[in-house]
Amino acid sequence: MLPCPVCWNNQEKNLCVLDQRLLPWEVSFIFCNTCEDVAQAIESLAVRGAPAIGVAAAYGVALGARKGKLEVERAIERLSRTRPTAVNLFWALDRMSQIAAGTEEEKLFSCLLNEAHAIREEDIAINRQIGTLGQSLLPRDGIVLTHCNAGSLATAGYGTALGVIRAAREHGKNIKVYADETRPVFQGARLTAWELLEEGFDVTVICDNMAGALMQKQAVAAVLVGADRIALNGDTANKIGTYSLAILARYHSVPFYVVAPTSTIDKEACEGSCIEIEERDGSEVREPAGHPLIPESFPVWNPAFDVTPHTLIQAIVTEKGVLTPPFLEKIIDI
Amino acid sequence: MLPCPVCWNNQEKNLCVLDQRLLPWEVSFIFCNTCEDVAQAIESLAVRGAPAIGVAAAYGVALGARKGKLEVERAIERLSRTRPTAVNLFWALDRMSQIAAGTEEEKLFSCLLNEAHAIREEDIAINRQIGTLGQSLLPRDGIVLTHCNAGSLATAGYGTALGVIRAAREHGKNIKVYADETRPVFQGARLTAWELLEEGFDVTVICDNMAGALMQKQAVAAVLVGADRIALNGDTANKIGTYSLAILARYHSVPFYVVAPTSTIDKEACEGSCIEIEERDGSEVREPAGHPLIPESFPVWNPAFDVTPHTLIQAIVTEKGVLTPPFLEKIIDI
Repeated sequence: MLPCPVCWNNQEKNLCVLDQRLLPWEVSFIFCNTCEDVAQAIESLAVRGAPAIGVAAAYGVALGARKGKLEVERAIERLSRTRPTAVNLFWALDRMSQIAAGTEEEKLFSCLLNEAHAIREEDIAINRQIGTLGQSLLPRDGIVLTHCNAGSLATAGYGTALGVIRAAREHGKNIKVYADETRPVFQGARLTAWELLEEGFDVTVICDNMAGALMQKQAVAAVLVGADRIALNGDTANKIGTYSLAILARYHSVPFYVVAPTSTIDKEACEGSCIEIEERDGSEVREPAGHPLIPESFPVWNPAFDVTPHTLIQAIVTEKGVLTPPFLEKIIDI
Repeated sequence: MLPCPVCWNNQEKNLCVLDQRLLPWEVSFIFCNTCEDVAQAIESLAVRGAPAIGVAAAYGVALGARKGKLEVERAIERLSRTRPTAVNLFWALDRMSQIAAGTEEEKLFSCLLNEAHAIREEDIAINRQIGTLGQSLLPRDGIVLTHCNAGSLATAGYGTALGVIRAAREHGKNIKVYADETRPVFQGARLTAWELLEEGFDVTVICDNMAGALMQKQAVAAVLVGADRIALNGDTANKIGTYSLAILARYHSVPFYVVAPTSTIDKEACEGSCIEIEERDGSEVREPAGHPLIPESFPVWNPAFDVTPHTLIQAIVTEKGVLTPPFLEKIIDI
């Protein structure tokens, strides 16, 4: 069984975060006793994936509440500065903020902890629902290509894009997975391959630049990716490389599906250009897996995400239904 | 000044090969005293790039000739098994074979050595001619994206795709280069960035999966790539990822140019499907830059090249002219 990526440790009263930086070599946990610990776990990518970041942040607010109501605001402010693109972070912080506003001081910690628990449990249930809906898009036998990690590790459990693949298996389908390694941080090679192999799936890792050649040589049934933020019109920010993959899928007439909970929808972003794209330190490019490849003096560009326009997306699979174009009205109504 | 990638060492009477595996950290040479030394330098990627492989192989045959005429055949057979895709290898071996056939035993080594010298010098002259012709395709100011290394290091000197960029600068043009890092062996990050930075060019390294996002954000004037083998109809085998890049270029209406000497044309391949694609050891994917990223047990796919169909290519720039579609007749006439 896969380890839980973000779990409350009821004995120690702290948050237990699987350190995803050490995977696939080591299953090791970080124990967060303060909001600051959680913020650093998010910033350092020990925990990553939009839904998992949301869950971790919710627990971070609860940990902050131990020091009183004033600290809740400070915790929310600190956590909101960890990563700019995944909207689930802000969605979870908003939800925690509303609970805090309506709760008296002495019940603050327990109420916020309960809300964090609820967000976590809902996330797993939502992913199962997404899986059930999404698996209907896949054939009985076929190849699916995925990018980055939209799996159990990116959520509270089960996964979004990989949840669809899990659900397909539960429905008796035979899906072979290709996983883009996903430079610069290799979430596909390290995390997606690991979690699928752990559960006995047939998965093959490719370098990101092999996706076109794969589609040229083999019939790919679908490309499934997660999302970090979805605009009202369906434009989707996700891990860098997603946009390229969507173009390759279109060229080969392969359906391209975004799989995400409705908490990933940003109703304040009317289109992709409104979404802030995080640029991360160039060392991620210069030092693959932490080993220097090229000197510090070599200029690099390192955007962590890109925006795939809605026109390249066949469907957005949410827990509330499989949305097909035109997306705008359907997203507004959700 | 850039070091010579493949040079005859007249004092020691051996072949001096720049060990490109150690770049950009170390400029170090391998001295090949036998044909087997050269074969291993090619197989291990110490020397790589279709034209450079051809030049190295020519010297390898000359080294074999030291042991007599019988050894020439054996040398050619050995070298022909080093790498299957780059046709310049077979072109150079054919040329050496023809010289050997018409030469008496006592003059064999000197004649073959002279032929290898000729191949090398011609390659540099050809690249300069390609550069002059190709630079006319570039604007006065603009961004060029390139993949892998089709530079000085991939040839006897000056380069093919990067030769065009060099020639553009010599013509007073201001070209900013983006270099795909080019997984799995990182020739773009390690070699292209290094050789361009050494000469003061403005170059930025990106991960392969950022090419789409780059074209979405910035006006890219052209994509320039080299080639390992060009079929009669213009279909082009080149470093894995080239095909994906050509699709991205087409989607963004960016012209996609293949830059190669006519020795890269395989007149026996009527189309891309006739080209053998080398698959290399999975360790290149599993161990980026030699450091284990994922365990041996993780399945990977590692094709070294892909084939870009002629329909995605705006022009093939050769020393004999800039070929535009339809390619077939023009390539046959070359």
